[in-house]
Amino acid sequence: MKTRAAVAWKAGAPLSIETVDLEGPKSGEVLVEIKATGICHTDYYTLSGADPEGLFPAILGHEGAGVVVDVGPDVKSLRTGDHVIPLYTPECRECKFCLSRKTNLCQKIRSTQGRGLMPDATSRFSLDGKPILHYMGTSTFSNYIVVPEIALAKIRNDAPFDKVCYIGCGVTTGVGAVLFTAKVEAGANVVVFGLGGIGLNVIQAAKMVGADKIIGVDLNPGREAMARKFGMTHFVNPNEVDNVVDHIVQITDGGADYSFECIGNTKVMRQALECTHKGWGQSVIIGVAEAGAEISTRPFQLVTGRVWKGSAFGGARGRTDVPKIVDWYMEGKLNIDDLITHTLTLDQINDGFDLMKKGESIRSVVLY
Amino acid sequence: MKTRAAVAWKAGAPLSIETVDLEGPKSGEVLVEIKATGICHTDYYTLSGADPEGLFPAILGHEGAGVVVDVGPDVKSLRTGDHVIPLYTPECRECKFCLSRKTNLCQKIRSTQGRGLMPDATSRFSLDGKPILHYMGTSTFSNYIVVPEIALAKIRNDAPFDKVCYIGCGVTTGVGAVLFTAKVEAGANVVVFGLGGIGLNVIQAAKMVGADKIIGVDLNPGREAMARKFGMTHFVNPNEVDNVVDHIVQITDGGADYSFECIGNTKVMRQALECTHKGWGQSVIIGVAEAGAEISTRPFQLVTGRVWKGSAFGGARGRTDVPKIVDWYMEGKLNIDDLITHTLTLDQINDGFDLMKKGESIRSVVLY
Repeated sequence: MKTRAAVAWKAGAPLSIETVDLEGPKSGEVLVEIKATGICHTDYYTLSGADPEGLFPAILGHEGAGVVVDVGPDVKSLRTGDHVIPLYTPECRECKFCLSRKTNLCQKIRSTQGRGLMPDATSRFSLDGKPILHYMGTSTFSNYIVVPEIALAKIRNDAPFDKVCYIGCGVTTGVGAVLFTAKVEAGANVVVFGLGGIGLNVIQAAKMVGADKIIGVDLNPGREAMARKFGMTHFVNPNEVDNVVDHIVQITDGGADYSFECIGNTKVMRQALECTHKGWGQSVIIGVAEAGAEISTRPFQLVTGRVWKGSAFGGARGRTDVPKIVDWYMEGKLNIDDLITHTLTLDQINDGFDLMKKGESIRSVVLY
Repeated sequence: MKTRAAVAWKAGAPLSIETVDLEGPKSGEVLVEIKATGICHTDYYTLSGADPEGLFPAILGHEGAGVVVDVGPDVKSLRTGDHVIPLYTPECRECKFCLSRKTNLCQKIRSTQGRGLMPDATSRFSLDGKPILHYMGTSTFSNYIVVPEIALAKIRNDAPFDKVCYIGCGVTTGVGAVLFTAKVEAGANVVVFGLGGIGLNVIQAAKMVGADKIIGVDLNPGREAMARKFGMTHFVNPNEVDNVVDHIVQITDGGADYSFECIGNTKVMRQALECTHKGWGQSVIIGVAEAGAEISTRPFQLVTGRVWKGSAFGGARGRTDVPKIVDWYMEGKLNIDDLITHTLTLDQINDGFDLMKKGESIRSVVLY
């Protein structure tokens, strides 16, 4: 079949809207009509050429929602008409990682996904007979996609695609880091470094679980109002205090119980660790640092009880936890509507990247 | 009263055996006759002058066992004749730290202890009217000591002082890191960097809880035999493999579930983290690094699921957990006898430091 898609022919160039060929689903695969997709900073990171693992030509996009149109042989858990969110972190429920019960990082199709291919090591996309690569196993910048069954979360049919697509990455990354990685408890003091989309989702999850102080840190004072709306109780502008770490230790009477780095800056990651409480403070790295950058601290920080960890896709198991997060949105526990600041057509997708680069959007969503 | 003690008059000089004055216990304090004390690397670290927080003159020693001789006013949980192990990490059960249920690092008397003083900010030791400082709140290189009630673990009366004194530091530090900090489970793969006394205690605790592979790493091949006796299943000499991290990842089919750094070398701390399993590997820093040294890694190591933490006094709550560890020794679950390689008189205490520096002892114990 044919599908419209925004193709990334090479690094650094705008996306090009094309009508490409899409092969149907093979065994264990599903054909999905994408109804909406967010534009995430990770797409930009790859498109820019900075991602050392970026491959071209490819169809980017990894934050979508849509409807099952057809299923290949041996697909058991999904059928035509099901509403789904594609998962760049699948959940096979049978690999060593899934069965460990300790991680969400299913490795079942890791190697082919990393090469831009389906599990049989081929691509379903092509143009003029030449293959175009998949991206993160999802490629939601295409109106129709083929993905493995294990990389689809089945969600309720009444959830609006144009909102819950954001659960495919940003919402889950922030909310999950609080719930699944850090397991923040009621009454805890929480610090969030970086008040972009991820940081705002960390904040609303901290509020949802009953955190006490929720401290936001950002150089941009323009971020304060929205963060307060999402639950932030204290705002810290590093330019306005002598020492961010000391300031937070003072506000929290000894340090934060949990901190979250949502920027990708290794210096901030150190501050995030060191502002947590002696004895039990946990710092979670969410932001993606530039290639080769390293984090450092004195080991004394850890020996005196702080824990340094990280979170990918919020520690969420895609098929198990994503549908729950959709429910929480539908029940009004999570606010997504205010985070989606712009909606675009596929033809306008490059404008979405511009809005992101300029810091004018929290999230732009493409509607098919 | 008078007591014999090994006094550290200044950094870098041998200890001097003196008869010093000891004031009796004040409110909440206990007079203890020390029957045996281990000589630990931390005593040497302070005596050498390398410890930036070292104070002189002082009576060192923090790994003792003895008998309660007298109690001051308001002491409720101990009486004359009780057998005890002094605790450099007390357990008051009422400070923010104790009540957090998340740490063993009771801070009730932290500030005075750090200054070599009892909680009323004075010393009980003196000579010719001039005060001599306490050390780590314990000073077990004195035959008689005064310590706060909250810094004494009451143990069973049939436990031999010359063995269980080692539980006052080394045994608990190693065993506790496995049980209380990492919470190693049966079937886990464990790597131990450094096969000195702490490392051997990590190994025997890993064996006790049913770990699968227990891999020991040490540059000294002479350490292999003893480590195997304690439960090590694989020995790795970093000089004999191309890359320690890759080698361990290979042996463990993807990485260790838990690793323990028992040396105090920041480069090894990085190896210890990076040899753990993607998704869930936990690395615990036990060794004390030199002042100012820093640990580093790529944040990607944490974002993909590894956890970096540390352990002090094995995460053990002194009054609650130390008596249990004594029981485990008495029940034959833990081997301490083979770790105590030398016994000395107080007059020979400097020989104990020499044995440690030469690497000839695992643990030397002074018998009063």
